[in-house]
Amino acid sequence: MTASASSRKLKVGILGATGTVGQNFLLKLESHPYFVVHALGASSRSAGQPYIKAVRWKQAYPIPESARQLIVQECKAVQFKDCDIVFSGLDHDVAGEIEQEFSEADLAVFSNAKNYRRAALVPLIVPLVNTHHLDIVPHQRAQHEPPLKKGFIVTNANCSTTGLVVPLKAIEDAFGPIDRVIVNTMQAISGAGYPGVPSLDIFDNVVPFISGEEEKIEWETSKILGGISSDLTSFDLRQNQPIRVSATCCRVPVLDGHTESVSISFAKRPPPTPEQVEEALRSYTCEAQSLGAPSAPKAVIHVHEEPDRPQPRLDRYFQDGAGVNVGRVRDCPVLDIKFIVLSNNVAIGAATSSIINAEVAMLKGVV
Amino acid sequence: MTASASSRKLKVGILGATGTVGQNFLLKLESHPYFVVHALGASSRSAGQPYIKAVRWKQAYPIPESARQLIVQECKAVQFKDCDIVFSGLDHDVAGEIEQEFSEADLAVFSNAKNYRRAALVPLIVPLVNTHHLDIVPHQRAQHEPPLKKGFIVTNANCSTTGLVVPLKAIEDAFGPIDRVIVNTMQAISGAGYPGVPSLDIFDNVVPFISGEEEKIEWETSKILGGISSDLTSFDLRQNQPIRVSATCCRVPVLDGHTESVSISFAKRPPPTPEQVEEALRSYTCEAQSLGAPSAPKAVIHVHEEPDRPQPRLDRYFQDGAGVNVGRVRDCPVLDIKFIVLSNNVAIGAATSSIINAEVAMLKGVV
Amino acid sequence: MTASASSRKLKVGILGATGTVGQNFLLKLESHPYFVVHALGASSRSAGQPYIKAVRWKQAYPIPESARQLIVQECKAVQFKDCDIVFSGLDHDVAGEIEQEFSEADLAVFSNAKNYRRAALVPLIVPLVNTHHLDIVPHQRAQHEPPLKKGFIVTNANCSTTGLVVPLKAIEDAFGPIDRVIVNTMQAISGAGYPGVPSLDIFDNVVPFISGEEEKIEWETSKILGGISSDLTSFDLRQNQPIRVSATCCRVPVLDGHTESVSISFAKRPPPTPEQVEEALRSYTCEAQSLGAPSAPKAVIHVHEEPDRPQPRLDRYFQDGAGVNVGRVRDCPVLDIKFIVLSNNVAIGAATSSIINAEVAMLKGVV
Amino acid sequence: MTASASSRKLKVGILGATGTVGQNFLLKLESHPYFVVHALGASSRSAGQPYIKAVRWKQAYPIPESARQLIVQECKAVQFKDCDIVFSGLDHDVAGEIEQEFSEADLAVFSNAKNYRRAALVPLIVPLVNTHHLDIVPHQRAQHEPPLKKGFIVTNANCSTTGLVVPLKAIEDAFGPIDRVIVNTMQAISGAGYPGVPSLDIFDNVVPFISGEEEKIEWETSKILGGISSDLTSFDLRQNQPIRVSATCCRVPVLDGHTESVSISFAKRPPPTPEQVEEALRSYTCEAQSLGAPSAPKAVIHVHEEPDRPQPRLDRYFQDGAGVNVGRVRDCPVLDIKFIVLSNNVAIGAATSSIINAEVAMLKGVV
Repeated sequence: MTASASSRKLKVGILGATGTVGQNFLLKLESHPYFVVHALGASSRSAGQPYIKAVRWKQAYPIPESARQLIVQECKAVQFKDCDIVFSGLDHDVAGEIEQEFSEADLAVFSNAKNYRRAALVPLIVPLVNTHHLDIVPHQRAQHEPPLKKGFIVTNANCSTTGLVVPLKAIEDAFGPIDRVIVNTMQAISGAGYPGVPSLDIFDNVVPFISGEEEKIEWETSKILGGISSDLTSFDLRQNQPIRVSATCCRVPVLDGHTESVSISFAKRPPPTPEQVEEALRSYTCEAQSLGAPSAPKAVIHVHEEPDRPQPRLDRYFQDGAGVNVGRVRDCPVLDIKFIVLSNNVAIGAATSSIINAEVAMLKGVV
Repeated sequence: MTASASSRKLKVGILGATGTVGQNFLLKLESHPYFVVHALGASSRSAGQPYIKAVRWKQAYPIPESARQLIVQECKAVQFKDCDIVFSGLDHDVAGEIEQEFSEADLAVFSNAKNYRRAALVPLIVPLVNTHHLDIVPHQRAQHEPPLKKGFIVTNANCSTTGLVVPLKAIEDAFGPIDRVIVNTMQAISGAGYPGVPSLDIFDNVVPFISGEEEKIEWETSKILGGISSDLTSFDLRQNQPIRVSATCCRVPVLDGHTESVSISFAKRPPPTPEQVEEALRSYTCEAQSLGAPSAPKAVIHVHEEPDRPQPRLDRYFQDGAGVNVGRVRDCPVLDIKFIVLSNNVAIGAATSSIINAEVAMLKGVV
Repeated sequence: MTASASSRKLKVGILGATGTVGQNFLLKLESHPYFVVHALGASSRSAGQPYIKAVRWKQAYPIPESARQLIVQECKAVQFKDCDIVFSGLDHDVAGEIEQEFSEADLAVFSNAKNYRRAALVPLIVPLVNTHHLDIVPHQRAQHEPPLKKGFIVTNANCSTTGLVVPLKAIEDAFGPIDRVIVNTMQAISGAGYPGVPSLDIFDNVVPFISGEEEKIEWETSKILGGISSDLTSFDLRQNQPIRVSATCCRVPVLDGHTESVSISFAKRPPPTPEQVEEALRSYTCEAQSLGAPSAPKAVIHVHEEPDRPQPRLDRYFQDGAGVNVGRVRDCPVLDIKFIVLSNNVAIGAATSSIINAEVAMLKGVV
Repeated sequence: MTASASSRKLKVGILGATGTVGQNFLLKLESHPYFVVHALGASSRSAGQPYIKAVRWKQAYPIPESARQLIVQECKAVQFKDCDIVFSGLDHDVAGEIEQEFSEADLAVFSNAKNYRRAALVPLIVPLVNTHHLDIVPHQRAQHEPPLKKGFIVTNANCSTTGLVVPLKAIEDAFGPIDRVIVNTMQAISGAGYPGVPSLDIFDNVVPFISGEEEKIEWETSKILGGISSDLTSFDLRQNQPIRVSATCCRVPVLDGHTESVSISFAKRPPPTPEQVEEALRSYTCEAQSLGAPSAPKAVIHVHEEPDRPQPRLDRYFQDGAGVNVGRVRDCPVLDIKFIVLSNNVAIGAATSSIINAEVAMLKGVV
């Protein structure tokens, strides 16, 4: 970060500001050291109203003072042209067109939507894992005619993918390639947004299906844990070191926090012991930390020693939800190692990921 | 069943009658065609009181009229000597001694407790799977000095094992041995009895640990799916066809009904397709049905076609909880096939299992 | 009931058959002694499809076999002309027009919707309370030009009103007019239909507001507990014996069963004791019982003696939800007497009320 | 507060430190400007162990670093003799004896237990309401032989009483005596401590009874809202201005936050309008604020304008749970005015009350 970067605040816009992810962006940015909320975008139905009128606020903490009277804009790039950074919490049914328009208008878009995650030149970044994928941004800009100067799209991952890949990355760094993963998720209702899941569907219940979720985990994992070509123009998607992932995704009556039960096997024999895996998880660090990104957690992974942890209600707010919790690391009688992961789907699984991605982008001079 | 068997009712006793399992025994036996509740046993604290005074009834249907004024007895065999059958819903901390005393007093004990499940000569029976294991009863009786005439112990399985082994058995019958199983359970709070799980522990939460549960699933599966020696004196525990099971057991905020996510692989290649597996599940029948056991379900396994089923709240009461629900049968990218199982832990997972076991024992002349 | 009435079954239609109330009508009518489901009505979007395709079934028991393949009709009277009785579970936004068309087409409509509850000549009947209000039907028919022969509209009350007026009626029968009522409800989520309450709104929460609900309780009580003029042409709405009702309505995280905390005062001094009130509640009977209506409960009011009952989870299914539970009858330090009421909002609070109303109408020759 | 008071920190002890209230004391005191945790007391079973071993920590935030290795003591005054203040979160079955021993050993005890709330010379203080009751402390000390110099017992109120009396006090300050109150509570499970309420009792349920709770509300209100004699030796318990309170207390499936539905009437006619009451609530301030107690809320009462607020999940953490939320202020058709109150039972309803009481005592020189 240059001196000038630290002395001024970047102006940020939030698209989909009235939705669940948008509300979380506002809370997480309330007193941010680099970023100041400058513009809010939502549907034309909300546009023109002060935010406090437009939003159905559903958070346990009040609307930040600075946002209450901001006038909501339509999601047109011209309304956000002063923004150094645009965070998108848009629904996928509108995100595709809008994010394209914004990036082509030379705006830096950090998106939580799924639309461009599979695009060949768009980085899919979990900020605790693969911020080096930002290196493709110059090539992404160059595809535009004329080349973009500041605009781009960077996406973060699906919330349930995010929780999974953090420990996988820590383990691969220490013990080499993982070749097979079976993951069963127990996902919180907040992951579906608002109004989202009807209470009659999830009350006293488990719904063993979340549309499209299993495919996201199975595909996104390879892009995130894969490499970038040496000429910084493509992602390798683990084609030379395939990682087969089998996901089953369930919704459970939990407000916030996705719990995942994971079994893995290693390409190399013999596999590490549970104690070795715990040690690797505990000592894992990431680029966002070393660069000093202010929203990065102190400990990327908190390894629990108690036999019955992590639990969403007790562990989801640790480090403001920016880290990942792992527990019950033990031998798997079928694959090699199994463990439990808990991540906060509305923090590191959504808004916090976009924000750390933007912090890293700024600290690396991409923004 | 002989003519006399059908024309008279067998007297049954219930041990642990004031507990959760005991209460369910009473409800399930309320208008049973063969069995009439004759004696109720509980701790010495309850003994001597009418049942209605001794019990803290926690069921959604009232105490059966016939049981309300029955005087609760201490769990001594002499008090139950008129009983043709004794059902035990005792806690494991007292079940060992009491069930032994009862069987040695020549009483037929059908136990829901875990104490004797691993005993070499005690059958561990899921009534929709391995009622032929009753054939070891004569050998069990013969070990006693002098040999028992009517007494024995038969156990049923842990509630989460029960849901798992029913589809595994149906699949093995059709496609030969399964060699690996990864199962993740999402278990209901009623599985822990009363008072059981404190609300502060499970409310808005997932607890990814149930003490001893994973070991039970991993071990019991081999005994239940294994064979009995040709001389009817021992169980083979699948020593020649090992089935490796990896279980992760979680408690979720659901009242009744255990949901399990299961991935399996087959010893033989190629494995069956999901459609073939569905057909095998749908057409599976068991001995309890062919013998006409009155509490056996019409359909052992209900295969759901909807993408988001089975669900505990919607499917747990189907067939009065005596069958098993399976859905989402599909290819597993890591093993061969994966699917979701739902079983009612307080019905087929507990009292109903003991009752069908007793019905089959009666219909086969073991009782 | 004439001999012919008992020997044949009346054909019934269900409007709003795919909704929550409609689904409950189907379950409650599955093996009804008088009524057979003949026609199902829903929106034009569903019309033409077999019921099993049109409905998103959300009940814990399967769709009745006889209904699965019935073709759903549009809600036009001509499609229901063979029906002796039409039950309406329509949403209020369409119920007004449709129910009017049906009644004017000489069909007997028993409605669960709110639209006509306040209409001067439409009886508002809680079947355990004021079935004598059916006496206004001839006058209602006579208003039509030409007078209707069979058609009419009868409504049942709002679910939370229903639970309240049953004990009030029993108490007034014994002790004379009640003049003041303060009632606080804790209402189940199923009262809002499907999709109804978003899980994010009610999970780990109480919502102290249900739109329009307090007004309904405060107004409907006077009509139901009021009289009918001696010439059977109008309701008195308690104008000579006002009953002031103050209601506060809250939504709580309960699936089924509305709990209400009630304080009352009497016009006459001294007021009865709690013991006298309990006795009056226990001994209360209603016309539906004396006429032998098959869906009427054996006991209209079950009075609980335990200090912590009634509770929705334990008491809502008693008598298939057709009766009302009362407990904790005690002195009120501010008014005279206070107590807790629990009623099953999807049974006596909705479909069951309409059905008993129809049974009584049939037994009295109104249908 | 003298200069010296501000420049040094007072040493505080916590009795019942391993319980739910004790855990909350630790969280609330983690970075307190006046107080530093010096000693932790618990049962002899825990004594001698570091806190982290002794406690079953059940909070959503981690154990404060400074407390993790503190050695838990038995609750003997000699172990706490260096403490300037002792907070008691003891269970009532042991609090009586221990708190007496501590106060007689000249220790200043701020207790959350119920044992001494009704004692004639013990102030029962809700810190947002009646901190002037501290004036009886000198008289309390004088009763001891020899008179105590520093020791005393001050209690705070039951959690459900606390939420109620704050708006009552604000209203009485503005409009004179309230003479009748009907209150219906919907209380959170955390109010019962740990393990507290079994999940099978409260899941999908309302329990319309909490042992002793209604009596507490009905009695404590008069002491808290009453005066102290001019010679500072007795409380008047509202004997000249009786306030009749009728309470019904229910447990609902909510984690934290007690919701209360309140109807009141005034001694003077005419009563104020809802708008006047709202204004009085909004403008209410208390001594803890004017003295600058650091844990006092900025706004004692937050008045909600939305029709469906306050709600526990959305409003319980506002101002760290130190204030009280009121909404739906409207006319009551039976009494005069009705409204909804929400207070955080583990904050202002428990630990936060004791802490503000101690802050005020220090600021007034009582400690």
